[in-house]
Amino acid sequence: MTDRPHNNTEWNRRTFLKVGMAGIGLTGAAIALKQLSQVNSKARVIIPPLPSDAAMASGINPMAVLRDFDYGTIKQENGRQIREFRIIADNSTLQLNSAVTFNTWNFNNRVPGPTLRAKEGDRIRVLFLNQGGHSHSMHFHGFHRSEMDGVKPVRHGAATVYEFDAEPFGVHLYHCHTEPVTRHIGKGLYGMFIIDPPKSRPPADEMVLMMAGYDIDDDRHNELYAFNGLPDYYMMHPIPIYQNQLIRLYLLNMIEFDVAATFHLHANMFQVYPTGRTLKPTEETDVITMGTAERHILEFSFRYPGKYMFHPHQDYIAEAGCMGVFDVIERNA
Amino acid sequence: MTDRPHNNTEWNRRTFLKVGMAGIGLTGAAIALKQLSQVNSKARVIIPPLPSDAAMASGINPMAVLRDFDYGTIKQENGRQIREFRIIADNSTLQLNSAVTFNTWNFNNRVPGPTLRAKEGDRIRVLFLNQGGHSHSMHFHGFHRSEMDGVKPVRHGAATVYEFDAEPFGVHLYHCHTEPVTRHIGKGLYGMFIIDPPKSRPPADEMVLMMAGYDIDDDRHNELYAFNGLPDYYMMHPIPIYQNQLIRLYLLNMIEFDVAATFHLHANMFQVYPTGRTLKPTEETDVITMGTAERHILEFSFRYPGKYMFHPHQDYIAEAGCMGVFDVIERNA
Amino acid sequence: MTDRPHNNTEWNRRTFLKVGMAGIGLTGAAIALKQLSQVNSKARVIIPPLPSDAAMASGINPMAVLRDFDYGTIKQENGRQIREFRIIADNSTLQLNSAVTFNTWNFNNRVPGPTLRAKEGDRIRVLFLNQGGHSHSMHFHGFHRSEMDGVKPVRHGAATVYEFDAEPFGVHLYHCHTEPVTRHIGKGLYGMFIIDPPKSRPPADEMVLMMAGYDIDDDRHNELYAFNGLPDYYMMHPIPIYQNQLIRLYLLNMIEFDVAATFHLHANMFQVYPTGRTLKPTEETDVITMGTAERHILEFSFRYPGKYMFHPHQDYIAEAGCMGVFDVIERNA
Repeated sequence: MTDRPHNNTEWNRRTFLKVGMAGIGLTGAAIALKQLSQVNSKARVIIPPLPSDAAMASGINPMAVLRDFDYGTIKQENGRQIREFRIIADNSTLQLNSAVTFNTWNFNNRVPGPTLRAKEGDRIRVLFLNQGGHSHSMHFHGFHRSEMDGVKPVRHGAATVYEFDAEPFGVHLYHCHTEPVTRHIGKGLYGMFIIDPPKSRPPADEMVLMMAGYDIDDDRHNELYAFNGLPDYYMMHPIPIYQNQLIRLYLLNMIEFDVAATFHLHANMFQVYPTGRTLKPTEETDVITMGTAERHILEFSFRYPGKYMFHPHQDYIAEAGCMGVFDVIERNA
Repeated sequence: MTDRPHNNTEWNRRTFLKVGMAGIGLTGAAIALKQLSQVNSKARVIIPPLPSDAAMASGINPMAVLRDFDYGTIKQENGRQIREFRIIADNSTLQLNSAVTFNTWNFNNRVPGPTLRAKEGDRIRVLFLNQGGHSHSMHFHGFHRSEMDGVKPVRHGAATVYEFDAEPFGVHLYHCHTEPVTRHIGKGLYGMFIIDPPKSRPPADEMVLMMAGYDIDDDRHNELYAFNGLPDYYMMHPIPIYQNQLIRLYLLNMIEFDVAATFHLHANMFQVYPTGRTLKPTEETDVITMGTAERHILEFSFRYPGKYMFHPHQDYIAEAGCMGVFDVIERNA
Repeated sequence: MTDRPHNNTEWNRRTFLKVGMAGIGLTGAAIALKQLSQVNSKARVIIPPLPSDAAMASGINPMAVLRDFDYGTIKQENGRQIREFRIIADNSTLQLNSAVTFNTWNFNNRVPGPTLRAKEGDRIRVLFLNQGGHSHSMHFHGFHRSEMDGVKPVRHGAATVYEFDAEPFGVHLYHCHTEPVTRHIGKGLYGMFIIDPPKSRPPADEMVLMMAGYDIDDDRHNELYAFNGLPDYYMMHPIPIYQNQLIRLYLLNMIEFDVAATFHLHANMFQVYPTGRTLKPTEETDVITMGTAERHILEFSFRYPGKYMFHPHQDYIAEAGCMGVFDVIERNA
């Protein structure tokens, strides 16, 4: 089940299940959100304090999702370093707004799933346990062997391990690939997978935005849309960022049923690193078209303090919840 | 209300209203279409005479819109040059075809609104008066302070001033940002905003095409589409251009409800300057995908005389009015 | 009817009809599928044997279409080389799946039509005969005179000749441009037109994929989708390719009614040559958005043997037939 031979102590499904029972638990309980990443903790980058009202009753908190990077657990094995992630597919109810409750299918009890992050060349091991009631799987974008492609459904109650080298650097994604994929992604089974280049990108306030749609009435059209899971969340809770500080936005379009969406930033321009596969930007604009599953790194900073909207310029998508605000806090460069 | 302090004679709402009454008029009367731009009046570029049947009873004339650039009025103020534009939001009826009349909401009594044009670094001042019966606003793409972002509705009968530096060079747009934006843009409240680079682009026959949709029956789908406001206009009135002369096309996709559209030019290829943010082309093709609010500069010239179509290759959009013809007139290089 | 004067023996409609009757036949009989191209028959590129079950009763065989390049017939005329193609528009019935039969309108009795291929600068002559019952035409992308643009309908039973120089190199297309174009393309009247650069691209296993939709019930929405004409064909018949061998994919999105689709390759990345207009790639990704009529060259090779899916990541399109599998066969580099 791995794409490179192990010389001893083959890591197998039995050990995984043991690990699963001890470390993950079979009850499907939520895994607590990770602490904010320290990846860019250099003195030059300061992340504003989060608003105190950012925590939400539903257990899904877009303000925490924004800068939450899951680096997994580092293990040494046969002289090689392994970066291990534990993912449980489960179900939970999400209050999308005051009127609409949505039954999500999710990874680690959040929509979107955790933002997994590694460095190029790291050995990745994902312990996947399906507690979701339906068959599910994890399909990663990026290089890997056919056996690790995650298109094979994993039954409820079963577990599997995905193991591969993190390649190539860039912004990638993972999602359930069980048919019908529209439904499994639409219910919430997706997340971002960031592979950092060997030499880290320059310091920046890094954050993640994932656009997605909610097909509430199963008519294969989305009635609501969201950034990071909750419609209009960042309208009600603007994202605090500092003036004149570089923002590095990892952006993914995960909207099903609408073939594409743009991302528009008000009163500014952004540099585009397509699929995060470049170290230099290839374009500057303020509106970029992204088909489903496209993702880019966008970089920008704001010159002036104040509130600035961001949203797809497919305004019907923005108006139905995929809209947010940056609150730029005054600070000298 | 300005993003740089004035040392004296603060330009305020009171002076604007005075100006408004004198220079703009509170009756909502149409502002006459500007004369054809002289920006590229160098001897090398010659613009063919317009067809005599180009003027239309409806008061909206796509043939005039095509090469009509509004450079505003230059004023000197505190030792600095100001480029001032006057915009009135109003309503008017547009005969889309022999069967369909459409009540537009518009800027300066035309759909699309005037093509505002400036040089990078110019100080821009837009005197905006809302005579439209509903709240409206003007949101510009490009750099500006939060206060100048135009997301705040301006009531009917009220006025405001947007003031900012024209940055960065490129092809931008402005539109009403009053909710629901789909409706305000769909009714006609949009226009192009061109910022020329410090050193002008090479001489060319420059023109503007804006793609838009008309949702006639308010079902959030477009029944008709148009270039520069009138369905099929350039099919019935081909655009005269000269053989072997560089055409610089400023192109904007302003179609709501359809997430994207392509632009296709027959029998030719064009060079693409994405968002007009580059001085060198980055791609050559004959079909380019543009999400809503995307805009580019396309450059091309025709080798052979004759008639050549252009249209989105979403043929259902082309067939419903978004289609036109270039009439290439013989002329030696 | 030609865009360069001939000094003698004007090739005219009369001679075409003669040729037509002799060489093409007026009965509308199917022209046999061409043998697999030998363009890359250099020793370094080896094409795996095709599965024995690849031939299908319907007469349309996506496995043959995949690597079938029609180089036409070379003729010498007035000291110049002419590359001549013969195309007949006709109708035929296509079994899309066990439940759905579709009446196609097609070129040379196949959907998509033959992949026409030439070198930049070649003189192209297309003898077009319409046996389709409706008016049809052939509109080519690429440079040509207005008279050769193929927007003029050719009546049933009539013939015409399209003649032009193959320019510029790239991946192009041809399709019927008779109104309504949505219907003529939707019924199957499209194909790829490849113009090779003067200096050939490096050796590779070259293949063609065209995405298209089928609007079965004429409601202007597609109910089924396909690569190379038959829904789910490459799911049931994976495309054999060799490990570590360069694949050069000529990809066209010909889907009507959906404004765009992406192409996603599993477990890999591809290099993008936009519109085939470059000799060096401009981007690397695994998901690329393509509006209708957009086409690119994608290059990639697989490191590991096994089965790997490809499909638009508009999963509703994939689930309705636009999905396939590469079967990567082990082979040392």
